[in-house]
Amino acid sequence: MPNDQLQVYWKNVLDSAVGAEHGLKETELDALTGRIARIVDDIEAQRKAGTLPYRDLPYREDLVQGVEAQTAVFKRGCENLVVLGIGGSALGNIALQTALRSPVYNLLPSAKRGGPRLFVIDNVDPVQFSAILDLLADQLDNTVFNVISKSGETAETASQFLIIRDMLIKRLGAEKAKRQIIAVTDPRSGTMRGIVDAEGYAALPVPDGVGGRFSVLSPVGLFSAAMCGIDIRELLAGAADMDKRVQARDLRKNPAAILAAVHWLMFNRGKKLHVMMPYACQLKDLSDWFRQLWAESLGKQKSLDGKEIFTGPTPIKALGTTDQHSQVQLYREGPNDKVITFLAVENFAMDVTIPDAPPSGQDMAYLKGHTMAQLINAEREATELALVASQRPCLRVVFPRINERTVGQFIYLYEMATSIAGALLNINTYDQPAVQLGKEYTYALMGRQGFEKMATELREQLRTDAAYLV
Amino acid sequence: MPNDQLQVYWKNVLDSAVGAEHGLKETELDALTGRIARIVDDIEAQRKAGTLPYRDLPYREDLVQGVEAQTAVFKRGCENLVVLGIGGSALGNIALQTALRSPVYNLLPSAKRGGPRLFVIDNVDPVQFSAILDLLADQLDNTVFNVISKSGETAETASQFLIIRDMLIKRLGAEKAKRQIIAVTDPRSGTMRGIVDAEGYAALPVPDGVGGRFSVLSPVGLFSAAMCGIDIRELLAGAADMDKRVQARDLRKNPAAILAAVHWLMFNRGKKLHVMMPYACQLKDLSDWFRQLWAESLGKQKSLDGKEIFTGPTPIKALGTTDQHSQVQLYREGPNDKVITFLAVENFAMDVTIPDAPPSGQDMAYLKGHTMAQLINAEREATELALVASQRPCLRVVFPRINERTVGQFIYLYEMATSIAGALLNINTYDQPAVQLGKEYTYALMGRQGFEKMATELREQLRTDAAYLV
Repeated sequence: MPNDQLQVYWKNVLDSAVGAEHGLKETELDALTGRIARIVDDIEAQRKAGTLPYRDLPYREDLVQGVEAQTAVFKRGCENLVVLGIGGSALGNIALQTALRSPVYNLLPSAKRGGPRLFVIDNVDPVQFSAILDLLADQLDNTVFNVISKSGETAETASQFLIIRDMLIKRLGAEKAKRQIIAVTDPRSGTMRGIVDAEGYAALPVPDGVGGRFSVLSPVGLFSAAMCGIDIRELLAGAADMDKRVQARDLRKNPAAILAAVHWLMFNRGKKLHVMMPYACQLKDLSDWFRQLWAESLGKQKSLDGKEIFTGPTPIKALGTTDQHSQVQLYREGPNDKVITFLAVENFAMDVTIPDAPPSGQDMAYLKGHTMAQLINAEREATELALVASQRPCLRVVFPRINERTVGQFIYLYEMATSIAGALLNINTYDQPAVQLGKEYTYALMGRQGFEKMATELREQLRTDAAYLV
Repeated sequence: MPNDQLQVYWKNVLDSAVGAEHGLKETELDALTGRIARIVDDIEAQRKAGTLPYRDLPYREDLVQGVEAQTAVFKRGCENLVVLGIGGSALGNIALQTALRSPVYNLLPSAKRGGPRLFVIDNVDPVQFSAILDLLADQLDNTVFNVISKSGETAETASQFLIIRDMLIKRLGAEKAKRQIIAVTDPRSGTMRGIVDAEGYAALPVPDGVGGRFSVLSPVGLFSAAMCGIDIRELLAGAADMDKRVQARDLRKNPAAILAAVHWLMFNRGKKLHVMMPYACQLKDLSDWFRQLWAESLGKQKSLDGKEIFTGPTPIKALGTTDQHSQVQLYREGPNDKVITFLAVENFAMDVTIPDAPPSGQDMAYLKGHTMAQLINAEREATELALVASQRPCLRVVFPRINERTVGQFIYLYEMATSIAGALLNINTYDQPAVQLGKEYTYALMGRQGFEKMATELREQLRTDAAYLV
């Protein structure tokens, strides 16, 4: 276990590393210690009061057993698993799959995969959707559809579900169709719940009070993971490991508090772009998962006391070494408005040694005998040092290796960092009021009853003014 | 052809749409007309003087014929094409493939693909690299490796190449190995050129003076595209269509000038985050291609007259509708520091109609009879209007449909917009000086001769200070 402990290294955000203009003083952190301790206390109190149920997901044996039972049922003969979901009902699923399964998983033969091929359709792109359905058209018998929607109101998931449901009933008959669908939805109410009950689909619950972006460790994320052979108990054990550490009241002993405090202090200094740059392809979709968590939780117009503050950092996903050849020019020479978090991996599960160069290519010979893991880590270190040389503050999260245990820790670490950062910003971390207007506009444009007046106004606004078209 | 004309719609950046505080006045654009005309003249003069050769790529019949000839040779019996490259030697290749081939291309049977499976390895991740090599281990006979590196100095591509070369020689013998490799490299000098000449590999040129991020319409991007069945002549014809339009001296008649001017004016007002948000999965990697083009070209410490300016917008890729459930909360309620460019598609190549909802799910019934294309476009319109309602400036680039012709236009449009934006910022658009230090640090950490002193210093800096590890 100690070998598999995630660690946060934060020296390179300090003035001692990046200079007084851009670095934090230790005294700034000292000044936050009392406030952080109170925030941690407060979050723990909310948890005990039952208002922060994501915090207890690592221990929900009932949920795990439900997932395991349904996995046992649905895995039999299943060659393809299609997840229908979007946002928090997709990003965690994708992140777990990318982190913990083969990079060429869907191209492997069945025996080598250890689970069905996985397709997460988190959009309503007609070309993508049609292409995937065409691909699976003659395999519907061994394809399972996992529709994930707490309410069933989300237009994207609803439309996907209606198409799939209709197709399965037509091709397989209603009885067989029923056995190819499993919903993850509200256990008691909502449109999707109503359909599940009326039509008799299998279902797993979205736990009460767990918002989409905090739901990956619930059946939302766990069912597809378990189906594909990911050890969900180890994942939750990793989250539980981290849970112990993020309860520390001492800022410097709490990795989530350090992440939140550093980002908040930097935000207040105008460094509002928070880049997450893993040096491992497996971790790239965890950046995308983080991107929703950070943006939707912290991007808020109003403070808790009702003031207009229009706050919130912009999370950015990058990937090492790839983005050294795309973004690092800007990161080093552009405005000093970013905090860059490197995700480092000490031990890779596979490696390959670089052989000697031919006589005609002796400029490459220095690579000989090194492994590719050494190279990617040398590039990571080089990039961090080059950024520090340009006074750009950097954080580092170190994975001893990538496995369920460390990924579970990572997820829980950033969820708790988000809770603390939201408290520092004095906002409601858990709502997303700004998404509503776009939903209503979509209803109007799609002709939903009750939105006729809005539709007329919108169509007026949408008329193209040729003077501004080129 | 007129039906396939890309258009830029810019009304929603004006004060009339998003208010005086955040919108541009028409007079601000008027004030730029003279300067823009001079910049366009100047860029055309550079082109005529031969110092801007990317501008002539649509007309390089010699390059196209070279690509076609090599494609004819290498396509025979080829079931897998592996591109070894990074940055500008990969992003364009990926973008073309995603835009113009099936979303499930690599999963299709050979007859349905119309070309080999494509693997673009733009990293040195040992797990990814090993997994792809394992997958192809018993198919090396029908696998072609396309190594793309102008100089051969890039450590990532060099290490990949050395491993592949060694493996092919060991498994297939030197003679056969030679026929599985094609390089795209400098036609006259450099390490890779030396190897190509000494070992007798096939090769296509990286044209003189065309930087990596402007090279997609050269053999760098065209060879893998042609191998996979993309019509490269139509792609270039699209670029040529756009070439005519971006020579206009009148700001309001030049789509590249409008994009550059709007982004520059907004940047000067503190809107330094430039989001590109396609509403089509096929266009998502064009955003990633844009991200390099914009960041590496415009992110510069010094102006042309040597002043320290630390300038450059941060490009951000997003994807509709997916990111409505991840980023739009922040885009509407967070700091008003972004310009959001929607990529709209009027006609999708495939579509699917949404059927009726079951009696238990009548809240979904409003979707009935609409197509998925209608839904994704309604969501795009709704999101743009919701952002405008929050005074967030938005641009729109409209694709009548996605095909080679429009993608060619898009590429050329943004390349020229980048040239104009660089001129407005008064920087060197075509260099990337900040990448050098990281390369040298990597050499040092990898033990390259001549970097021993640097290596000692770096290792000292890299020592973990346990006080900052949590």
